[in-house]
Amino acid sequence: ADRSAGKAKARVCVACHGLDGLSKLPDAPNLAGNSELYLRTQLTAYRAGERQHPQMSIIAKGLSDEDIADLTAWYSAIKVTVELPE
Amino acid sequence: ADRSAGKAKARVCVACHGLDGLSKLPDAPNLAGNSELYLRTQLTAYRAGERQHPQMSIIAKGLSDEDIADLTAWYSAIKVTVELPE
Repeated sequence: ADRSAGKAKARVCVACHGLDGLSKLPDAPNLAGNSELYLRTQLTAYRAGERQHPQMSIIAKGLSDEDIADLTAWYSAIKVTVELPE
Repeated sequence: ADRSAGKAKARVCVACHGLDGLSKLPDAPNLAGNSELYLRTQLTAYRAGERQHPQMSIIAKGLSDEDIADLTAWYSAIKVTVELPE
């Protein structure tokens, strides 16, 4: 997996998920800092039709295994910190 | 939706997702800072069997609409900041 390639390939992801992996609209989850295993599993499930979403089911069908590995290398490498509400 | 009730009800979530919404094992996503819409949609899909996962399909079946609203109020209220890799 090539994180730099993933950053470049994330072009197709950024409108909804951001290059920073933070959701840009309510229907999309944050990707930042999720594990490679989780992200790969979801993209593979969308590609196989096991998980469904109007946009993701289409986008995932265009991704190779290498694309998925590169994209997940990028988004999983983003460090996340949180601040809890009172 | 009652965020404090959600924090208390999150007892069933924390082993995998943390009270802070950060994944505690590779198979589980971060929940922190995701939108209420996204989180509610996923829990409802698990409960209906439209999204499947060994643990989540069981856990979601035990959640009422109010539980889901409370839990998503908690996890969506966590503020997330990110640091990008080089």
